[in-house]
Amino acid sequence: MSLLFKHLRIHQIFGANTDVGKTILTTALVRASAALKNEVFYLKPISTGPIQDADDEHIRRHCGAPQGKVHADCLYRFHVPVSPHLAAQIAAEGEADKIVPDDTFLNSISSYVRRCASRVSDPAHLYLETAGGVHSPTLSGVTQLECYRPLFLPTILVGDARLGGISATISAYESLLLRGYIVDAILLFRDQYYRNSEFLTPYFAERGTEVTAVNAPPPKAVDAAENLASTEGYYENLNLLPVVQNLDMRHQQRLAELDSMPRRSIDTLWWPFVQHGLVKSEKDVTVIDSASSDFFAVYNAQNAGRSTSSLESQFDGSASWWTQALGHAHPALTLAAARASGRYGHVMFPQATHAPALLLAERLLHDGPGKDWASRAFFSDDGSTAMEVALKMALRAFSVREKLEGTERKALGVLGIKGSYHGDTIGAMDACAEEGVFTCEWHNAKGYWFDPPTVSIQEGRAIVTLPPALAAVAAKNDYRVNTVNSMSWVYDLTGRLDSPLAQVYREYISHTLDELERSGGPRLAALVLEPLVMGAGGMIFVDPLFQRILVDVVRERDPAPSDLTGDWRGLPVIYDESTIPFLGAAPDISVHAKILTGGLVPLAVTLASDSIFRAFYSTKKAEALLHGHSYTAHPLGCEVANETLKLIEREVRSEPWVAAKARWNFDGAPSAVWSLWDPRFVQALSCLQNVTEVMTLGTVLSVKVKDVQAGRCQSSWCQLTFSVHFRTLGNVAYFMTSLNTAPETIRTVEDKIWKALETKHLFE
Amino acid sequence: MSLLFKHLRIHQIFGANTDVGKTILTTALVRASAALKNEVFYLKPISTGPIQDADDEHIRRHCGAPQGKVHADCLYRFHVPVSPHLAAQIAAEGEADKIVPDDTFLNSISSYVRRCASRVSDPAHLYLETAGGVHSPTLSGVTQLECYRPLFLPTILVGDARLGGISATISAYESLLLRGYIVDAILLFRDQYYRNSEFLTPYFAERGTEVTAVNAPPPKAVDAAENLASTEGYYENLNLLPVVQNLDMRHQQRLAELDSMPRRSIDTLWWPFVQHGLVKSEKDVTVIDSASSDFFAVYNAQNAGRSTSSLESQFDGSASWWTQALGHAHPALTLAAARASGRYGHVMFPQATHAPALLLAERLLHDGPGKDWASRAFFSDDGSTAMEVALKMALRAFSVREKLEGTERKALGVLGIKGSYHGDTIGAMDACAEEGVFTCEWHNAKGYWFDPPTVSIQEGRAIVTLPPALAAVAAKNDYRVNTVNSMSWVYDLTGRLDSPLAQVYREYISHTLDELERSGGPRLAALVLEPLVMGAGGMIFVDPLFQRILVDVVRERDPAPSDLTGDWRGLPVIYDESTIPFLGAAPDISVHAKILTGGLVPLAVTLASDSIFRAFYSTKKAEALLHGHSYTAHPLGCEVANETLKLIEREVRSEPWVAAKARWNFDGAPSAVWSLWDPRFVQALSCLQNVTEVMTLGTVLSVKVKDVQAGRCQSSWCQLTFSVHFRTLGNVAYFMTSLNTAPETIRTVEDKIWKALETKHLFE
Repeated sequence: MSLLFKHLRIHQIFGANTDVGKTILTTALVRASAALKNEVFYLKPISTGPIQDADDEHIRRHCGAPQGKVHADCLYRFHVPVSPHLAAQIAAEGEADKIVPDDTFLNSISSYVRRCASRVSDPAHLYLETAGGVHSPTLSGVTQLECYRPLFLPTILVGDARLGGISATISAYESLLLRGYIVDAILLFRDQYYRNSEFLTPYFAERGTEVTAVNAPPPKAVDAAENLASTEGYYENLNLLPVVQNLDMRHQQRLAELDSMPRRSIDTLWWPFVQHGLVKSEKDVTVIDSASSDFFAVYNAQNAGRSTSSLESQFDGSASWWTQALGHAHPALTLAAARASGRYGHVMFPQATHAPALLLAERLLHDGPGKDWASRAFFSDDGSTAMEVALKMALRAFSVREKLEGTERKALGVLGIKGSYHGDTIGAMDACAEEGVFTCEWHNAKGYWFDPPTVSIQEGRAIVTLPPALAAVAAKNDYRVNTVNSMSWVYDLTGRLDSPLAQVYREYISHTLDELERSGGPRLAALVLEPLVMGAGGMIFVDPLFQRILVDVVRERDPAPSDLTGDWRGLPVIYDESTIPFLGAAPDISVHAKILTGGLVPLAVTLASDSIFRAFYSTKKAEALLHGHSYTAHPLGCEVANETLKLIEREVRSEPWVAAKARWNFDGAPSAVWSLWDPRFVQALSCLQNVTEVMTLGTVLSVKVKDVQAGRCQSSWCQLTFSVHFRTLGNVAYFMTSLNTAPETIRTVEDKIWKALETKHLFE
Repeated sequence: MSLLFKHLRIHQIFGANTDVGKTILTTALVRASAALKNEVFYLKPISTGPIQDADDEHIRRHCGAPQGKVHADCLYRFHVPVSPHLAAQIAAEGEADKIVPDDTFLNSISSYVRRCASRVSDPAHLYLETAGGVHSPTLSGVTQLECYRPLFLPTILVGDARLGGISATISAYESLLLRGYIVDAILLFRDQYYRNSEFLTPYFAERGTEVTAVNAPPPKAVDAAENLASTEGYYENLNLLPVVQNLDMRHQQRLAELDSMPRRSIDTLWWPFVQHGLVKSEKDVTVIDSASSDFFAVYNAQNAGRSTSSLESQFDGSASWWTQALGHAHPALTLAAARASGRYGHVMFPQATHAPALLLAERLLHDGPGKDWASRAFFSDDGSTAMEVALKMALRAFSVREKLEGTERKALGVLGIKGSYHGDTIGAMDACAEEGVFTCEWHNAKGYWFDPPTVSIQEGRAIVTLPPALAAVAAKNDYRVNTVNSMSWVYDLTGRLDSPLAQVYREYISHTLDELERSGGPRLAALVLEPLVMGAGGMIFVDPLFQRILVDVVRERDPAPSDLTGDWRGLPVIYDESTIPFLGAAPDISVHAKILTGGLVPLAVTLASDSIFRAFYSTKKAEALLHGHSYTAHPLGCEVANETLKLIEREVRSEPWVAAKARWNFDGAPSAVWSLWDPRFVQALSCLQNVTEVMTLGTVLSVKVKDVQAGRCQSSWCQLTFSVHFRTLGNVAYFMTSLNTAPETIRTVEDKIWKALETKHLFE
């Protein structure tokens, strides 16, 4: 809901503290704006204290402009002279639901601003004066700079001229920076004794913000008329024209910068996965000016009209490539990043330790995805490098146990599933079949990949679809599979392990592995799986039973004696990104990235069992896992990951969350299996004429459409029609929320998807 | 210079603002500590204002303990009641060099604390009370929390109970977090009207810090005796025992945590490049508690004695694997990280743009390493992924121009130099020869690698050493090379391009390439170089002339017509990490990571010329560069990189820097060639009996020692002897500073290296 209008320059005024002269300096700004022939709006969203002392009254009294040129308004007025959150509590008489929630509050500001924007055509100015200091609580009790953040208004900071004011001003500025605010100007009173402005001017000049110091107002006269006159005289002598002109310039620069970004980006960036020859015009570039929770603020140069903000709110419908566990710019993650950066920066990791990395390793191993099987955490930078590490681990463990040497080690392959994707470095690519577009010069697929049975919802019913080879085995065994009991049943593996379908899977896998051994293909040294869903491969939801049986069969074929309990058996098994042991079988190695840092910075980890670790353990340096990246286990990433895991745990483990949000727990299946999307919506969607099949799990919704032209949809196009910035893979459109996306937001997105698909507009 | 003593718990007290009751609450803490039978030290490093109002006086008056149990001291006293920086200016009477510099100030605090620690044997407490607010300037004008940061003392924040105090308290807290401080407690006065403590208690509980609110002191009585009595009465009724016990507990927890970290790390971490079988004991683990500028604060459990801090300052002698361009925990980088995190979090990048990435791309292309040749910036996560991208670019460009298909594309190789290292993902490894320890199961070296001529300083003289094959060509041509004019001459290529040695290089390279073509080896599709120095390969300083001739020969062999000007010729040339075109020949592709973010977070970029970019440009998606990582161009990293490049530019381009720091500019060579190490020291070092050769360039110093047992040195061992945490590669020890390492620090490290080598102690 960011607001930006070409003709209406808006600034919010924050104070470094209360009583630093916000209203006086804002009045001076209003007067300077009016003197420049601009129509001026002044908004005090919340006023506490007697009406005669109210700031909007003061503005009206001293704006020094004719009626109708300056508009001063207040949205919420309380008469008790206390902080807004206390005033709101008192007014609500203890009834919490009478307190205005943040979104209502922001909507009323937003409506006010839009009304102002549509009322004027000539360049106009709007000043929004906040209450107290930057972190003073607003009506709901959330502190102001958090509450106002979605509007992302450029900011003027009023500094503190008193003793201690240097500190107050710098700290307030830093709190603003921590929320990403643009600070366009700092104003404060001149004080000959403490001389704060003399210190602050070069301090902030170095940081790119101009400080303007002005004389303080005269002492308040006892006589009202005298007071009015002396105040008016004071304002007449203040000249903030240069400040207002500077603000105008900053506004113009911001617009010019945003206008120029698409062209400059097309000219200099080389985007990942993008065919630049298909980027037709500047309109095809998404200019992201800021982001907050689940929304991008996207600049749209077309919206230069009076009543439409040039910044559009767009739902980040793919959670920025599945990274956003907690939404964009989560304040707790920013603080975690700041904390670690301030304490360590980066420190080298080999044979060293620091709290963020150690605590993260312990959390992942003892309370996280490594619980009960993993003993070691190896950090790297992204999913692709973590998979390279996993492969090096598995191949070495296999080579050591099988006593392979030299070229035998180079010739190893992996066992996997078609449609897998593990990243774009060559090693990760080599663990995938060469199919579709994801290949390149040095890619040499090394291994064998099964065609998997998949799970989906078609015409309201849960379906397991077998690929031809499996269907043949099923037919031979007289097993007919199609519609299954329910989606809960699909994911409740304990009930399925002895089913006829399990037998079909088992026979098919065993037979294939026998054939592979006979045929003399590459020697298989690892089983590599993306549990449950192969995302990049086209949102393929594999029947979890098939993956489980695959793991079981591979392990059961091992003739090793039972004293190897705890060691890997058959082949080292690698899981790529699974946070919960859905398959009921632990891997020997697992890879975790993406949401590990809650969607802030790259960091990845490869977990390994002790039996894998021991394959590298000796007294010879050359036998170590000689892999590392400069920023291995960088403290910033580890600290953010710790904070993320803490917040996710707090969120997901809270009963209300499950009740209010995780709406589809698959009727009685283990509670780990849930979806944030409405089951009725998903079912209905799957019945639409344009839809082949639908699937949902956790935060993900994928929709396979019939449209033969599918896949040509450009993301920029999607957002324009939709305000939902989703992604497509072939003819599959996929949507993803964060864990704390508001239920109403999901409902809105569901409505949009429904409307688009009902009228065939999703891909056209 | 971090301070931590088992028996002496130290806390620094910061105020959310001035006049919030710091001294009163500190007095109460001192009384509670004394009541717990502890000896207590109170330090007010700087006091301004009349002596009778001084805080240490107040403590003495009201400590409520017998003489000798509570010690109150002040280090710098000024009589003018203004901020310390103003008081210092006034006292210095305008002479800037009379103002106490930060390191002198910190040393005097540190000495005081050490004296206190050595004076007591039973558990004691020390409270250090700062002045004003967290960011109030100290004597030198640096704000307090920056100035005190190297001491890294646990902190008590005194909150503000007045109107606006919620905001002031939270902002002060956030400023502390931005410097990584541990905030152990928040204290403030109770105020029945504003009720700040009611808001702040749950707020900070959620963030892990306990808030304690106490009654405010009685109003000041006019009569002195009456005032003394009422104040004393007030203190008698305050009970901060629970707070002091909590602080004791935090202190114990911190020590216990640090004590346990080596064992826990050995049990859970899998370190990069480390043979865990060689990690003999907990002493082999470096516990990094914090870091600042060029120093780690390393916990040493052995230092539990009275007079030695358990935290040792260790020079980060390898700049944390060559990442620290500006030193650890640089405040400007933390703020940049916070700013981008607060504004964007992470936002997906394909076909999108945001200011940090766009500005970074433009800076790199137009004013940075891509100037004059590169047109595109492709972001990824680390040097290894950026090299994979570079290889994909080069191989594709070659394949397209040569119209290769299918298996021909898979069989391509690269041309390079032995000893190269480009990262640990399989693609990057495949671009290196299989030699030494850096290999693994799937590594298949693809290409041909030259044995290079190298540059070094031996016995005080600059030497070029030719490998046997080259030496043979030289001998055939009657060219004798060994001692060269000077190191400046070596790097001044313009003067060497027509030299007899250049002719030897040219003949050798041409002949080898002819032989390779005839022999039917892999078809070479790219030339890959680490310009000037191959670090991981063993700090090999290649004769730059050889690399330049290699580029020239490869390009000259291209029979392509001259209308291809600007396009790559012969083979696409990749430079891995070069920031300045030392070789006088631009590459077609270059890779940059490590110092790109000033040493904070992973981020890498691959720059490419337009002719490389065009090889992927079409209307077919499958022909695009289908490579990407989830956090591609993450705003936090890009913003930090922009800040880094700005600071480096400011630093390095300033004349005083070159004069004061870059001490070796190779006598008349281009000013880009310099070293921060003293030329006389380097020369003398090379003459030591234990030293084979030495080399220095920029911030790097490498020392090859004769010791045959070399290479077995463990990093933990190095630090213990040395307080310099350096690294070794084979029998080479290397040292690296950041760009803003203080000249005195470098001098100290030089002295330590000298002493160690003179007495044979570097590797023993």
